[in-house]
Amino acid sequence: MAMNVAHQLIDAHLVEGKMAPGEAIALSIDQTLTQDATGTMVMLELEAMGLERVKTEVSAQYVDHNLIQEDNKNPDDHRFLQSAAARLGVWFSRAGNGVSHPTHQQHFGQPGKTLLGSDSHTPAAGSMGMLAIGAGGIDVAMAMAGEPFHLKMPEVWGVRLTGELPDWVSAKDVILEMLRRHGVDGGIGRIIEYYGPGLACLSAMDRHVIANMGAELGATTSVFPADDAVQRFLAAVGRGDDFSPLAADDGAGYDIDEKIDLSRLEPLIATPSSPGNVVPVREVAGESLSQAYIGSSANPGYRDFAIAAEMLKDRRISDWVSFDINPTSRSILETLDRDGHVLSLLGAGGRLHQAGCNGCIGMGQAPANDSNSLRTTPRNFPGRSGTREDRVFLCSPETATASALNGAISDPRDLDFAYPRVSEPDDPLIDVRDLMPPLEPDAARKVELIKGPNIASLPEFEAIADRLELPVLLKMHNDVSTDEIMPAGNEVLPYRSNIPRIAEFCFRGIDEEYPQKAEASGDHCVIAGRNYGQGSSREHAAIAPRYNGLRVAIAKSFARIHWQNLVNFGVLPLRFDDPGDYDTLESGQTLTFEGVHETLKQGDRIAVQSDDGEIVLRHDLTPRQVEILLEGGLVNWMKRHREG
Amino acid sequence: MAMNVAHQLIDAHLVEGKMAPGEAIALSIDQTLTQDATGTMVMLELEAMGLERVKTEVSAQYVDHNLIQEDNKNPDDHRFLQSAAARLGVWFSRAGNGVSHPTHQQHFGQPGKTLLGSDSHTPAAGSMGMLAIGAGGIDVAMAMAGEPFHLKMPEVWGVRLTGELPDWVSAKDVILEMLRRHGVDGGIGRIIEYYGPGLACLSAMDRHVIANMGAELGATTSVFPADDAVQRFLAAVGRGDDFSPLAADDGAGYDIDEKIDLSRLEPLIATPSSPGNVVPVREVAGESLSQAYIGSSANPGYRDFAIAAEMLKDRRISDWVSFDINPTSRSILETLDRDGHVLSLLGAGGRLHQAGCNGCIGMGQAPANDSNSLRTTPRNFPGRSGTREDRVFLCSPETATASALNGAISDPRDLDFAYPRVSEPDDPLIDVRDLMPPLEPDAARKVELIKGPNIASLPEFEAIADRLELPVLLKMHNDVSTDEIMPAGNEVLPYRSNIPRIAEFCFRGIDEEYPQKAEASGDHCVIAGRNYGQGSSREHAAIAPRYNGLRVAIAKSFARIHWQNLVNFGVLPLRFDDPGDYDTLESGQTLTFEGVHETLKQGDRIAVQSDDGEIVLRHDLTPRQVEILLEGGLVNWMKRHREG
Repeated sequence: MAMNVAHQLIDAHLVEGKMAPGEAIALSIDQTLTQDATGTMVMLELEAMGLERVKTEVSAQYVDHNLIQEDNKNPDDHRFLQSAAARLGVWFSRAGNGVSHPTHQQHFGQPGKTLLGSDSHTPAAGSMGMLAIGAGGIDVAMAMAGEPFHLKMPEVWGVRLTGELPDWVSAKDVILEMLRRHGVDGGIGRIIEYYGPGLACLSAMDRHVIANMGAELGATTSVFPADDAVQRFLAAVGRGDDFSPLAADDGAGYDIDEKIDLSRLEPLIATPSSPGNVVPVREVAGESLSQAYIGSSANPGYRDFAIAAEMLKDRRISDWVSFDINPTSRSILETLDRDGHVLSLLGAGGRLHQAGCNGCIGMGQAPANDSNSLRTTPRNFPGRSGTREDRVFLCSPETATASALNGAISDPRDLDFAYPRVSEPDDPLIDVRDLMPPLEPDAARKVELIKGPNIASLPEFEAIADRLELPVLLKMHNDVSTDEIMPAGNEVLPYRSNIPRIAEFCFRGIDEEYPQKAEASGDHCVIAGRNYGQGSSREHAAIAPRYNGLRVAIAKSFARIHWQNLVNFGVLPLRFDDPGDYDTLESGQTLTFEGVHETLKQGDRIAVQSDDGEIVLRHDLTPRQVEILLEGGLVNWMKRHREG
Repeated sequence: MAMNVAHQLIDAHLVEGKMAPGEAIALSIDQTLTQDATGTMVMLELEAMGLERVKTEVSAQYVDHNLIQEDNKNPDDHRFLQSAAARLGVWFSRAGNGVSHPTHQQHFGQPGKTLLGSDSHTPAAGSMGMLAIGAGGIDVAMAMAGEPFHLKMPEVWGVRLTGELPDWVSAKDVILEMLRRHGVDGGIGRIIEYYGPGLACLSAMDRHVIANMGAELGATTSVFPADDAVQRFLAAVGRGDDFSPLAADDGAGYDIDEKIDLSRLEPLIATPSSPGNVVPVREVAGESLSQAYIGSSANPGYRDFAIAAEMLKDRRISDWVSFDINPTSRSILETLDRDGHVLSLLGAGGRLHQAGCNGCIGMGQAPANDSNSLRTTPRNFPGRSGTREDRVFLCSPETATASALNGAISDPRDLDFAYPRVSEPDDPLIDVRDLMPPLEPDAARKVELIKGPNIASLPEFEAIADRLELPVLLKMHNDVSTDEIMPAGNEVLPYRSNIPRIAEFCFRGIDEEYPQKAEASGDHCVIAGRNYGQGSSREHAAIAPRYNGLRVAIAKSFARIHWQNLVNFGVLPLRFDDPGDYDTLESGQTLTFEGVHETLKQGDRIAVQSDDGEIVLRHDLTPRQVEILLEGGLVNWMKRHREG
């Protein structure tokens, strides 16, 4: 059967299930990527599992998120990650070395491989003809331990590109066009596959821009074929031998079809405060701004900085605009520097920051109050910049730079000079020493983990009991997000490596006294409405309640990733057979579950005694997930699995 | 009479008093320097005084301290300062442009001038043959308004330099030798004047290093003659016409004499946690480190980075050391970049940060727990780095770089390569556009101040009443510091432009309920022991208690700057005539002062009725200070003065 690129990648890695949309499948994972914000928990999970050495072809740990060192917590995490990487046979990229995605593409991107990453922008590597998926930390930990990744088979959405990008229009405008057409949920349950003659004008780094922000459409991932552009990229970074071509078979089709004529695109911009609010730049031109910002994994390439440098050479940004330059990797910064572009950017008045995620994840660079900020970053959710009532726009480097020059939002086509077309260099500087390679096994075994005072080992969770008598501690509304279950922000995030400490902030958005109540009652359950656990994928939203004694979560329905995270950490997620029963339960009541073990194994129906009688609940667990739950979660299951 | 350089500078600017040590004098001020941490209050004070345009030759406002933008507060302050500078005729250097001291030296340093700055390292400009003094914000505001600066005439301490610095020993080791000999209070009440044949080997930027850290000896300031080195510096930065020679008269003497033979110096290092704990590097060599750090106003020159770059060229820092590079100005960064040094530093694994003060004032770059950090910064007070129990060492760029290479504290003389001697460039890149020049008066008058929601105008304070009946709200121990009166740190500092808000944190280190008690009681007084108000010069420690209702502070003795700040903001500082009376007063008692106005004018004795009888107190105010106090502080006094 003729297969598209996505199907070829899945077929080559399929270890369970069938390639029909919606079917449960499992894929073998060649490479993993972790960053520091999620990686400390991954390393603690691997420690708890007792893993001695990763089983992937490549696992790489990057330090790119938490680079502001206000006190010892962040640098302590960096050292912990470096020691854990050394111990487990993981490549390590240290602070100041750059953002994971472009660095990974440069050093490890290879057509035909699978990549699982504990970062939602992992799909950027789809630019190389890889199948690259973002996942929760423990799913990545499992992949590092050699386990396949489980998911439901997505639909494949073919986007045929024709034509050529006009002057002043670049890759960012292509993905903004997708967001303009389909909004932030248009890609859910789908893989986006780009193909067609329009690809010829897109370099591998241009494709990175497009694949990266497929995450903003909610897509499982985005893929591109491995063609000449990929071959050129690999040759330039000195890894020509890693190239192998990958293209859709003749006659291959797609589950959904779409077309974009690149020659008809114009500069686009996402207005505050959603990546889906896309309009032509000309519609908002003339508004003032206080900040313009280039860099991030959504515009990481040499070209994305060099175009700004060429535009700014011997020119000067507006006196009232802060022009923030965020290099994405050490190698890209060195290459820009060699070619004189850093001098042009500085000379124009830019603020050159260290290589990393920086303001893109709210680590500094918050804009002034009551002012517009134009950014080449992937997200502009309200307050993500750090300023509570921010007004962040997402656009191309061309639009950000034109606006910085004029001190007002500007369509770059209106500038009074010619488009300085810039290409990716054929001879980039590649600092291979920046990634510390894995130690040999003998040396690795001798490495001790370096844990600062804020880094606590993962708590051990016991298996679920056969009989449960659980007080209802909270009764919650519809659409409770993981932000309400486990808040983020500067006060809480520094404790990401310390479950007992972060658990003190649990459910703060719902009931500030929850931690005290949980401590008083011990094991307990909670009740919720529809779409419980929407939002961020952070697994702390499952681990921390479990640490507080949560054993069963009952809801009208669950958000997919949080549901998976609950199972992974031994919390039983159940839904009402009759949603009307939600109304019969109140906090303070006690629910009794009998014969839990056999009931879960034998069907999807589970009866529970409430104060007012019996209620029927359902579970949606696969047999493997039942097994995981009965063991008390994935860590326990893995330990048993490895022993057996 | 033959005069030394310090005396010539003072003599040329003396508007009141006699040049005898200890005498009250007043000096006319040619230039002022403010930075963002102290500058917002200065601008609010000038607004309150109703000043239309500064009266100095040069006033420059720098944004270099609070560069981490976690939310809108810091960028809002930057915009406020930019608008205030535009309105008042002040030069403005925006965020990312660099540290005030080297930038000021480059653009405005000129022999024979006086400079008053609201930053304790202002004396760095003494390298240019200037008299440069650090002061509280309102003292600088007064200078901007054309008023002279009042101080007690210091002694002049002549330090004769002979010989030439050996390889691997540089200017930082000279000032560390001064600290090794005299400790952190050796310079109190003194001006340090360097002279002698040893000067020939010290460039203007080398002298900046030495003059900068004179502050760590407690000196009023440090001065150098204006000789060939200063002429070379001015020619290089394109301001040769600003040079005029300045040297001690033949036969001029000093109040104190000292000699340093430069050829006998070796690499020195200040061990944790005081700039006074100086030992030879060899005594601590071999200890591990997690961080090495170059930059800051204490090693700001081209040479200080270029020497590190030459040492690191084609070499690699230890895998376990974070090597933080903090460029001190845009121009220096551009020049280093042009000459290839930035590439060498990046290639070795350095983390290149934006130009500014950064980690030197605890804005990021905190070291990991339980590990050593080697820095070229001026201060290593405990916890200043952001890490509570830090271990920060102060040393030269040579020692920091050698230690980064080896992963252990290292005497650079033990390296296996030759000393790569580097000089200041004759053709530095000077980005004159970086400093925005003052607007013409007509344009300036039209500028509106841009105040973010966190920027509050300075509260108005009424004049002191003739009869005071004040409850004693606090009774404090000896050596209460301004950190206890008005804490610093990340929680409090963002409110530096908002007196009502920051006042809520007042006396937190003494009595957490003070703000509530003050609100309940209204006007009140406090009692303290010896050395009340030691430590930082921050004027918030006077303004915030005054806002809370403090009218009289009674102590056994006061720290000099805090005493001055109390007077400046209308709080009457009194000392016990008989220190034993301290024991007779308790909080909760009420003190009654009658006929305050006449009593202050007529003598230094003031009687007060306590619950247990009469107590005699003393004041040390000059007639001018009595006038200021009776008006309710300098802002009110200035308003009246200008009207009159």
